[in-house]
Amino acid sequence: MSLICTGTIGIDSVYTPHGQAERVLGGSCTYFAAAASFYGPVRIVAAAGDDLPEEHLASIRRFPQIDTTGLEIRKGSKTFAWGGKYHANMNSRETLFTHLGVLEEAPPPVPEAYRDSKYVFLANTHPAVQLGLLEQFPSRRLAVADTMDLWINIARADLDALLQRVDGLVLNYDEAELLTGKANTVAAARHILDMGPAFVVVKKGEHGCLFAHRSGLIGALPAYPAETVIDPTGAGDSFAGGMMGHIAASMPDAGSGEDTVPFDAIRRALAHGTVIASFNIESFSLDRLATLTPEELNERYEQFAAMVRI
Amino acid sequence: MSLICTGTIGIDSVYTPHGQAERVLGGSCTYFAAAASFYGPVRIVAAAGDDLPEEHLASIRRFPQIDTTGLEIRKGSKTFAWGGKYHANMNSRETLFTHLGVLEEAPPPVPEAYRDSKYVFLANTHPAVQLGLLEQFPSRRLAVADTMDLWINIARADLDALLQRVDGLVLNYDEAELLTGKANTVAAARHILDMGPAFVVVKKGEHGCLFAHRSGLIGALPAYPAETVIDPTGAGDSFAGGMMGHIAASMPDAGSGEDTVPFDAIRRALAHGTVIASFNIESFSLDRLATLTPEELNERYEQFAAMVRI
Repeated sequence: MSLICTGTIGIDSVYTPHGQAERVLGGSCTYFAAAASFYGPVRIVAAAGDDLPEEHLASIRRFPQIDTTGLEIRKGSKTFAWGGKYHANMNSRETLFTHLGVLEEAPPPVPEAYRDSKYVFLANTHPAVQLGLLEQFPSRRLAVADTMDLWINIARADLDALLQRVDGLVLNYDEAELLTGKANTVAAARHILDMGPAFVVVKKGEHGCLFAHRSGLIGALPAYPAETVIDPTGAGDSFAGGMMGHIAASMPDAGSGEDTVPFDAIRRALAHGTVIASFNIESFSLDRLATLTPEELNERYEQFAAMVRI
Repeated sequence: MSLICTGTIGIDSVYTPHGQAERVLGGSCTYFAAAASFYGPVRIVAAAGDDLPEEHLASIRRFPQIDTTGLEIRKGSKTFAWGGKYHANMNSRETLFTHLGVLEEAPPPVPEAYRDSKYVFLANTHPAVQLGLLEQFPSRRLAVADTMDLWINIARADLDALLQRVDGLVLNYDEAELLTGKANTVAAARHILDMGPAFVVVKKGEHGCLFAHRSGLIGALPAYPAETVIDPTGAGDSFAGGMMGHIAASMPDAGSGEDTVPFDAIRRALAHGTVIASFNIESFSLDRLATLTPEELNERYEQFAAMVRI
């Protein structure tokens, strides 16, 4: 396997009913890679400014399976910074500030050694940038993108072009409705399949996920029933990291003749994403994933599998 | 088995983005019993006024397993009538009018022949009325109640007393938070167990359900991914009907030494409730359940079970 994630490194300031954490390590690439690294090696392509604290870099490097060759520390630039506040039920949040910093500059270069990457995850950014990055992985077997309401609203043509080129799309519940105009999530997911991808995963936070597959099958999983929710930041990215990490680790070698990931393999992968995301939200930043053991992960996975089996 | 439901017969006027239905048959008892009848015989205790159209009575009697001995048609009284309008996503609704009618009068009498009922479902009404009805089933093995925000707000002492007497509680997502003051659904469900019941089922509509069990186990199921949603009215009651119908039909005989329904049996029962509710919402009133065959029900159950298995 050779899994890669393109996305952001961020400095997050998060305020929740249970506490706060200021200028901690965040970013889509960070959460994705930390989660995916439990399944195998993962490469990252991201840029940060030279204001990124040394301890944040050390936090990423503490995950031995994360290959940081593609992490560019750009001199004179500022790291992407985000501040957010969660409401009482932890399901909704408001953005307090966004300092784009390095995200307003050229995207990070893809190292030559990464061009052979087979499994590509394009974390949320402008779809034109995602398309440009995608081109740089000519050996890819599977490409999955995340997106958000902003791009649906202001870069629809680029997003439509991207959807023609990726195998999978991951997006939030309300974004699926925004993208398709369909209030019924199943109908929205089926509609997105018509726009290009072979599968689409609709994330519903504490309510789990729903997915549609080119085979015509629809799947749904509850979230892990988490009682300890300290900070939901990164839940979606760690969910995607667990999903892609499991797919990359378990797919048969290329040449098997499969034109996309089978429905059952995606469902299992989403269950892994569900479980690792449930650990991520137990702390601010990467704190919980940094101490998570494969045994704990496996135990909760088995518990979750038993929980949903009927 | 001898399953009984106490609740309402209603005349509903429903307005949805997909159409409308005026003065059709509704009510908690109606939906519960129609769903439960797919699993075995079900008794009902409910009152209607003499304005209940003959065709509505015929609609109930079309389900051969519903025993209507306890359905009282009260002369000179008006049947409970409700009008509601669903919003675009079908997840929220507003009440247009409520005419209590017979619900403002004495509760319906429980026929002597029903006193040996073993499985009792107390559909939503004032908890003092539910308590009074409960007393009339001295041979009960399992009693489950539904409730709503109104009683949590205005009849809390009666509700607390009821919770000490029932084995299970079924309520909506936001009502679980209102009852416990806990925004986290898992924490709310566990808190409700401390108030008395051996299990609690939190209904989340299109997002499925979460349940907590005295054993300490927590379960969660997604909803059936329904693309055809014509009218969600009665979804919760048909869900409860499928659940209780399956429990009543599948529990070993009394004297087995079990002090409550095991976790796995509740999970399976909730899956049945999920599936039958998914048929109910495909039409206004009982129209879809009236044509549903056991083969269709079984086929979708198997499909759902395969969908959630990982």
